[in-house]
Amino acid sequence: MRTPLTRELHDLLERGRDRQLRLAVTGLSRSGKTAFLTSLVNQLRHAGLEARLDLLPAAREGRLLGARRIQQQDLGVPRFPYDQAMLALDDQPPRWPEATRGISELRLAIRYRPARRGLLGVETRQLTLDLFDYPGEWLLDLPLLDHDYLSWSRAQRHDGDGERAALFTDWHRAVADLDPAEEVDEARLAEIAEQYAKGLRAAREAGFADLQPGRFLLPGELEGAPVLQFFPLPGIAEADRGELAALPAESLYATLARRFRHYQQHIVKPFYREHFRRFDRQIVLVDVLGALNAGPERFEDLSRALSNLMQSFDYGRRSLLTRLFAPRIDRLAIAATKADHVTPEQHGRLVALLEALLADPLKDLRFADVPVRALSLAAIRATQSREVNQQGRRSPALQGTTLAGESLLMFPGEVPDRLPAADFWSRQGFDFTAFRPLPRDKGTPLPHIRMDAALDWLIGDKLS
Amino acid sequence: MRTPLTRELHDLLERGRDRQLRLAVTGLSRSGKTAFLTSLVNQLRHAGLEARLDLLPAAREGRLLGARRIQQQDLGVPRFPYDQAMLALDDQPPRWPEATRGISELRLAIRYRPARRGLLGVETRQLTLDLFDYPGEWLLDLPLLDHDYLSWSRAQRHDGDGERAALFTDWHRAVADLDPAEEVDEARLAEIAEQYAKGLRAAREAGFADLQPGRFLLPGELEGAPVLQFFPLPGIAEADRGELAALPAESLYATLARRFRHYQQHIVKPFYREHFRRFDRQIVLVDVLGALNAGPERFEDLSRALSNLMQSFDYGRRSLLTRLFAPRIDRLAIAATKADHVTPEQHGRLVALLEALLADPLKDLRFADVPVRALSLAAIRATQSREVNQQGRRSPALQGTTLAGESLLMFPGEVPDRLPAADFWSRQGFDFTAFRPLPRDKGTPLPHIRMDAALDWLIGDKLS
Repeated sequence: MRTPLTRELHDLLERGRDRQLRLAVTGLSRSGKTAFLTSLVNQLRHAGLEARLDLLPAAREGRLLGARRIQQQDLGVPRFPYDQAMLALDDQPPRWPEATRGISELRLAIRYRPARRGLLGVETRQLTLDLFDYPGEWLLDLPLLDHDYLSWSRAQRHDGDGERAALFTDWHRAVADLDPAEEVDEARLAEIAEQYAKGLRAAREAGFADLQPGRFLLPGELEGAPVLQFFPLPGIAEADRGELAALPAESLYATLARRFRHYQQHIVKPFYREHFRRFDRQIVLVDVLGALNAGPERFEDLSRALSNLMQSFDYGRRSLLTRLFAPRIDRLAIAATKADHVTPEQHGRLVALLEALLADPLKDLRFADVPVRALSLAAIRATQSREVNQQGRRSPALQGTTLAGESLLMFPGEVPDRLPAADFWSRQGFDFTAFRPLPRDKGTPLPHIRMDAALDWLIGDKLS
Repeated sequence: MRTPLTRELHDLLERGRDRQLRLAVTGLSRSGKTAFLTSLVNQLRHAGLEARLDLLPAAREGRLLGARRIQQQDLGVPRFPYDQAMLALDDQPPRWPEATRGISELRLAIRYRPARRGLLGVETRQLTLDLFDYPGEWLLDLPLLDHDYLSWSRAQRHDGDGERAALFTDWHRAVADLDPAEEVDEARLAEIAEQYAKGLRAAREAGFADLQPGRFLLPGELEGAPVLQFFPLPGIAEADRGELAALPAESLYATLARRFRHYQQHIVKPFYREHFRRFDRQIVLVDVLGALNAGPERFEDLSRALSNLMQSFDYGRRSLLTRLFAPRIDRLAIAATKADHVTPEQHGRLVALLEALLADPLKDLRFADVPVRALSLAAIRATQSREVNQQGRRSPALQGTTLAGESLLMFPGEVPDRLPAADFWSRQGFDFTAFRPLPRDKGTPLPHIRMDAALDWLIGDKLS
């Protein structure tokens, strides 16, 4: 086996010759990561044959010869379950693949002919594409590195009277009795931490996204470990800092603070150090339509979550990330997924809404000179677009089969092209229906919308 | 937070002054680890009050003042779920606690008065006891470090016509088609590896214990990772070594061998390096009665598994373990658990059988000068011992409540005091019934058999 050092060197050389690219796919739960990666692999495997990839020049020009999966480098990272996903999509009726948890990877060897002939006539080249899939929730923990326990506690808000705050009532009641100076009762602390985690899980179930610490939602082998047993202490103030810092190691406050630091050092940092900083390119998937459908509280929550998440791509010279990890992503895409769930003439508005939602982070990215592109796509189409004749007027509609198996022809509504104001929610709203994947002949490529545009932005320049 | 270095130094100093002890509890699945640890904590917490610990001098002499749980050092290791276990035992009717998975820990501060008074009159001292619980299955992987992939493949036997071999039929059929030199098809390899893991899981379900690689049975976050996708290749011979080693990296053989090495380096070694070599003392629990009950094939399998497992305690100068990890366990106990499931006059025979089962490893341990003691115990009693009058003859019996809730008075049979010969199985056999924990008043200590003897051997000298 190659030693890690020479392997890194080898990787570096390969990348230097434009032969290797590490592309990461992320997004919050249910943003469509699994569908996107499955479709991406599927399109590349069918490239050169039946895949429709007109927006990807190498494919349009017949230079893309195909792709096959080869062995990944890091044997300790789960392999992206492409075959299982295709089995679900090939089922009768087709099913959506099961969502992945944690990180997974898959390596493709892509064969293509360069646009210019070499001296020796027609030659083929190979691009090794490493694909990574990881939960966007992990990125929500980055801002946590910029805090100590005191400031983090103060930044977490679980009061107020929204639907989300109501999910933390039990925890809030329990935590109110605690005195930072009291000697810690570990069993009681574990109990209150579990109430906090329960609140986070309930919030996620209810469609909220701006949830920290992310690992509380997916504890894995750390279930029951003290590092996942902490929570913010409401009611402590910046003015108490000196007094709190002087509390003994066995105090509740010192215990919570110690666990918070352990979480930073042993949970958050390793992901950035071992994975994130090695990605060359990145696509962030956003289920804008789902959030639009879920009403104003969740839409605003998504907006906050995305601002947090996008901090991981802010490479400004003074950014937290740059100081800590020196990442090197040289190209970023942000995609509104499930575009097939609105009629085609709405796609432009969908992109405009996505850009409005990310306006501040996008400004930072442009300022930091990170090339970024926003688009809308459907990785795996679930609807056909139709026109219906209503009293002599032709209007656009969608045809699909609901998850319950009902065939439906509908117009889901107009997507606002800017952040919706209060009257949007009361007046109009949005009627989003979840559809099954379209049936197709087995062995044919997955139908999609603009996967080729995404591919062009993410890997097109490496195929020229 | 203390840095790891100063923490280690602090630990070292504490241990030097007899103030700190790291005690590990292990055993194969269903050997009674959770019950043992729960009872151990429970007895020490009740010491000085109602606990019956006459075989532990510090308790008998009234010098053991009690114990309380304090914060553990390693925040990334799950805490042993003592409270949940006690909840189950305090239930109506009492239930056995749920088995732990993976490693867990718990730290106790034990207060005692030394046997000799100090100059300043009555003083109390504190012993910090770190308790660890981990699956004995992990120790079955140690011998794997002594192999390369070729020799490991040859050492694994899944043919023959036992009940165990039958569980590997599917895998055996699939692997027979493979050519070590063929280019690897990863999807196919993953499939065959899953068949192998399925065989291991079925074997464990059926009560077999000698199963490798241990992590295949408990993949956790490595589910789907290539490092858990390998298996032995039957039919390769030592004579093929040169030829096999020359196969290209993409060949099936080279791929399997690479994954095997990764498993050694990244799964097996870290446990020994990060945990095992830091334990001071160790108790290995063995469910001899369960194996006796399950018949000859499983009993022999347990014997093989224990020989493998005990290699982790062989500190002879030339042992694999000593070469690799320099462990320092200075005292070892081996206990036949569930002694309350046979009548008391059988307990001596139970220990004799345990010693016979471990005869070879015990010889090695004594040769290596590791102090070791074999005993029988019941961590949490499930039966009362009775006498019944049969035709004027008084004979011993057990009274208990079966898991199904039926009250039972029975004589389970005689335990052989040496390794049972073929005629034992055909002639006599053994009738083992699983009982519920005895009901008791909430807040009273757990009834046990010889937990105090085990405690005396494991920590008694530190309380003098």
